[in-house]
Amino acid sequence: MAKRFQHVAIVGKHQAQGIRPILDEIADFVMGLGLEVSLERETALNTGMTGFEALTTDELGSQCDVAIVVGGDGTMLGFAREMARYGTPLVGINQGRLGFVTDISIEHFRDALAPILAGNYEVEHRAMLEGAVWRDGENIFEGLAMNDVVVSRGATAGMVELRVDVAGEFMANLRADGVIVASPTGSTAYALSAGGPILHPSIAGWLLVPIASHTLSNRPIVLPDLGEVRLEIVAGRDASVNFDMQSLASLLHGDLITVRRSAHRVCFLHPEGWSYYATLRRKLRWYEGVS
Amino acid sequence: MAKRFQHVAIVGKHQAQGIRPILDEIADFVMGLGLEVSLERETALNTGMTGFEALTTDELGSQCDVAIVVGGDGTMLGFAREMARYGTPLVGINQGRLGFVTDISIEHFRDALAPILAGNYEVEHRAMLEGAVWRDGENIFEGLAMNDVVVSRGATAGMVELRVDVAGEFMANLRADGVIVASPTGSTAYALSAGGPILHPSIAGWLLVPIASHTLSNRPIVLPDLGEVRLEIVAGRDASVNFDMQSLASLLHGDLITVRRSAHRVCFLHPEGWSYYATLRRKLRWYEGVS
Amino acid sequence: MAKRFQHVAIVGKHQAQGIRPILDEIADFVMGLGLEVSLERETALNTGMTGFEALTTDELGSQCDVAIVVGGDGTMLGFAREMARYGTPLVGINQGRLGFVTDISIEHFRDALAPILAGNYEVEHRAMLEGAVWRDGENIFEGLAMNDVVVSRGATAGMVELRVDVAGEFMANLRADGVIVASPTGSTAYALSAGGPILHPSIAGWLLVPIASHTLSNRPIVLPDLGEVRLEIVAGRDASVNFDMQSLASLLHGDLITVRRSAHRVCFLHPEGWSYYATLRRKLRWYEGVS
Amino acid sequence: MAKRFQHVAIVGKHQAQGIRPILDEIADFVMGLGLEVSLERETALNTGMTGFEALTTDELGSQCDVAIVVGGDGTMLGFAREMARYGTPLVGINQGRLGFVTDISIEHFRDALAPILAGNYEVEHRAMLEGAVWRDGENIFEGLAMNDVVVSRGATAGMVELRVDVAGEFMANLRADGVIVASPTGSTAYALSAGGPILHPSIAGWLLVPIASHTLSNRPIVLPDLGEVRLEIVAGRDASVNFDMQSLASLLHGDLITVRRSAHRVCFLHPEGWSYYATLRRKLRWYEGVS
Repeated sequence: MAKRFQHVAIVGKHQAQGIRPILDEIADFVMGLGLEVSLERETALNTGMTGFEALTTDELGSQCDVAIVVGGDGTMLGFAREMARYGTPLVGINQGRLGFVTDISIEHFRDALAPILAGNYEVEHRAMLEGAVWRDGENIFEGLAMNDVVVSRGATAGMVELRVDVAGEFMANLRADGVIVASPTGSTAYALSAGGPILHPSIAGWLLVPIASHTLSNRPIVLPDLGEVRLEIVAGRDASVNFDMQSLASLLHGDLITVRRSAHRVCFLHPEGWSYYATLRRKLRWYEGVS
Repeated sequence: MAKRFQHVAIVGKHQAQGIRPILDEIADFVMGLGLEVSLERETALNTGMTGFEALTTDELGSQCDVAIVVGGDGTMLGFAREMARYGTPLVGINQGRLGFVTDISIEHFRDALAPILAGNYEVEHRAMLEGAVWRDGENIFEGLAMNDVVVSRGATAGMVELRVDVAGEFMANLRADGVIVASPTGSTAYALSAGGPILHPSIAGWLLVPIASHTLSNRPIVLPDLGEVRLEIVAGRDASVNFDMQSLASLLHGDLITVRRSAHRVCFLHPEGWSYYATLRRKLRWYEGVS
Repeated sequence: MAKRFQHVAIVGKHQAQGIRPILDEIADFVMGLGLEVSLERETALNTGMTGFEALTTDELGSQCDVAIVVGGDGTMLGFAREMARYGTPLVGINQGRLGFVTDISIEHFRDALAPILAGNYEVEHRAMLEGAVWRDGENIFEGLAMNDVVVSRGATAGMVELRVDVAGEFMANLRADGVIVASPTGSTAYALSAGGPILHPSIAGWLLVPIASHTLSNRPIVLPDLGEVRLEIVAGRDASVNFDMQSLASLLHGDLITVRRSAHRVCFLHPEGWSYYATLRRKLRWYEGVS
Repeated sequence: MAKRFQHVAIVGKHQAQGIRPILDEIADFVMGLGLEVSLERETALNTGMTGFEALTTDELGSQCDVAIVVGGDGTMLGFAREMARYGTPLVGINQGRLGFVTDISIEHFRDALAPILAGNYEVEHRAMLEGAVWRDGENIFEGLAMNDVVVSRGATAGMVELRVDVAGEFMANLRADGVIVASPTGSTAYALSAGGPILHPSIAGWLLVPIASHTLSNRPIVLPDLGEVRLEIVAGRDASVNFDMQSLASLLHGDLITVRRSAHRVCFLHPEGWSYYATLRRKLRWYEGVS
């Protein structure tokens, strides 16, 4: 029923130590399964791997029917953003400690990849945030985020004050160190550190988390993902905004940050039997008490 | 486009001081609009109001096309549960400080009710939890909850340990003072005190909040509302479960509490221009900092 | 400079599996150092160990100049309470995962005990709570607590309301699931689960933590340990109070719980180089992030 | 028994609207009591008040035996820092909403001041933080703080990593948005927003609060105030440090921030019957629930 793949893209965290032999092994293994392999261009250039077609992200998106990403969650989320408009399904292999979305270990990649590439896998979709910054009615920045859009106070400013509107309705003015608008994927990243709850990936909502809010009752809130979330800089010098890791500094009073659901969503493939909750238990060490 | 009403049920928090003249005024006002009025039976009996048909909740549900509830959020949620299967829309008039779902003040009831009864209102639907308790395969308790289903440790037990499964998948074993499974409506009640986030009423999810969890990383989590949430008592003597305020004590090891989305949902009517966020701002005093 | 010991008490978590051979080994080792060994009476009776004098806790307190406690933190805290008035220093050996105050592992007990018994150790004092319950002016309960005094709502009561006075000044009325008054030792136990901070053992203060407070701004507070903390049951049926694990249920409105600093404090001995912060890092896994 | 005052300094938040007539009234009132009045120099210059001796802070410190500060908590804390080494007791009159340490309202200043100046008052001492920044062994910054010393990540840096040592012992490496070291006075300011507890002013301890820590178990901790708290920048570009509101940006890896107890402490005078807890109840609205 599920799709059997034919043309596999491989992309690696090329700056990581010791990545080359791992990528070689994976590429050989996939070829050995009788599938076509292409390398992401930067990965090929930086590792010096040859013998495979080296393609740009756009070329990979239009030609490959699955991509294997080797690295950590950061590598995966960055690549996922770039590939979002192609809908290419992604498989994550983690070099180090397993991540939230890179859940196959180097040690077991053969056992995990073979059935996936043969069409036996669990599909999981993740929503993405599409954000923009507006100044005097002009769009001055645009970006996609898998995890979150974060507005932060300037380093020496006591706070930033934001007016928040949701789907055209005024929600609140928040005075805080910053405000996080996170996807369910981002709920286990920065938003968790700032006191937010976990959102199951299937929840159709954004998580808005004030960071160190001046008003103690300004709690994290889960908002519908249908309308636009709009954050206006009301006070606080030198505020900045981050879309995942891409950042825009020196925001001015009156600047608007808008966040809405991207038309694209990311498709992750997991080994059969994969469980989101098992990932939570492992990452958050739910088996272990404090005493 | 919206419905104009004809037969209005009135129900009051009949044990409250000074409720009788308020109910009289409201009933007179509704009659003056040319609508038919029936009283909820207990309200009629306890206040001694006569001159109106006194109906059971079931009769009100099948005969009236709207119900006016006079009291606080507790009165409203209790009545809403009983009327759930009829889908009768509910309007809340609050005697005291405005509530989350009883948002019309006694002082302004005329200005608010007239347009609503004439068909000009905002409709808001709220999901309900349908819960059950199972012992040795037998259903020993069933109940609906607007706010939450709460499992709590016994008073002198150090904790309760619960195995949590969601839609057939194992989530975690939680050792805590208790666990709250809340609807979006319940997210601003007990769950908020226990550290949970706010869920906008349109979010299709339940909020699971551990109370004083032994494991610090057992954070509140928002779960999909499609499957069943299942809590099994694994350890801890004398645990109890509450469905809103209805409670069942002395749970045994192996007892199962199941929670799923009720087929019924509650329909609240609000004055035009009503805003969920305005209610939050008012109730949580978001306009006021701490210093 | 530090004291060299001569008469060593040994007490064990006698109900634990496999404790007998461990106690035998420790007793032999201490005798081999030329020191006198006595067994705590219950430990001797339950393990069947013979060949050592079996003494009551009181006899141990007046005759021994150091006690070795084998078990977990619970065993240690229970024994420490009983020995408090004798001031006998305590050394903790942990059978399983190291605790906050039982920080010598079975594997390394020889290397750790030899220097301690020879007078080379770090001394650490811990304050204790002395509590009482008063009804109609009569003292109906008294107890010592190493960790905390906890007032909890009844299992099916929505909350307990407490009036809190500190050193004769009114502090606040708290409506909550309960209130914890913890010593610095208790700050890493239940109080931590309920959202409290960690208190270094040298801090002369109690930690008051409301559990799931109805008022969001009722935050944990660190109070001076000089005056009496007084909790009066104002509302809520079937509240109970725990002094560490000793519990008194069915509290009535008007019942008073008083907590003050005990004249006794507990003295723990640790291996040289021991560090409180190292214990925190190990127990709270501070080396490991969540992602 | 308490001291009767003779020479009163008056200082005002001179940039505030409408401050001049208020200061006039207060000065007249104090003169009317037969006491000598001097004005703080900046206050005199900016308001244009004449007829009183205008003195520098140092002159006020050495000549006046009490100072009346008119403004909010910020004005008071700033002036308190400057006067710290003279030990001059301070009385706070608040123009607007009462503060934590400016607890006399303009409306009632006569009733409150007359007894205080006649020697009937409550004395309260507050500890101060003395901090410094060291680079390559050189002291590059020094400052006093009434509230807190805060190290923050750069605006576009994901985090700052700090190595924390307390009294010469390694505590932990923290990866977070920042770290707050607060006095009990500061525990109700920024530290409270970041999730810290309240510390009664008499507690001899500092509160260390990580802001949005990557490690969920890095909870607020109360440390003894005897030794030095030392924060070393281990990672994170463009970190900055604030001593109350004075800030130093662009910290480098290896920079050290040291915090210790100042030899000076601030002395506040309050009307008789004043209560710290009453201030908490008022500022944190402890009388009001959320629902």
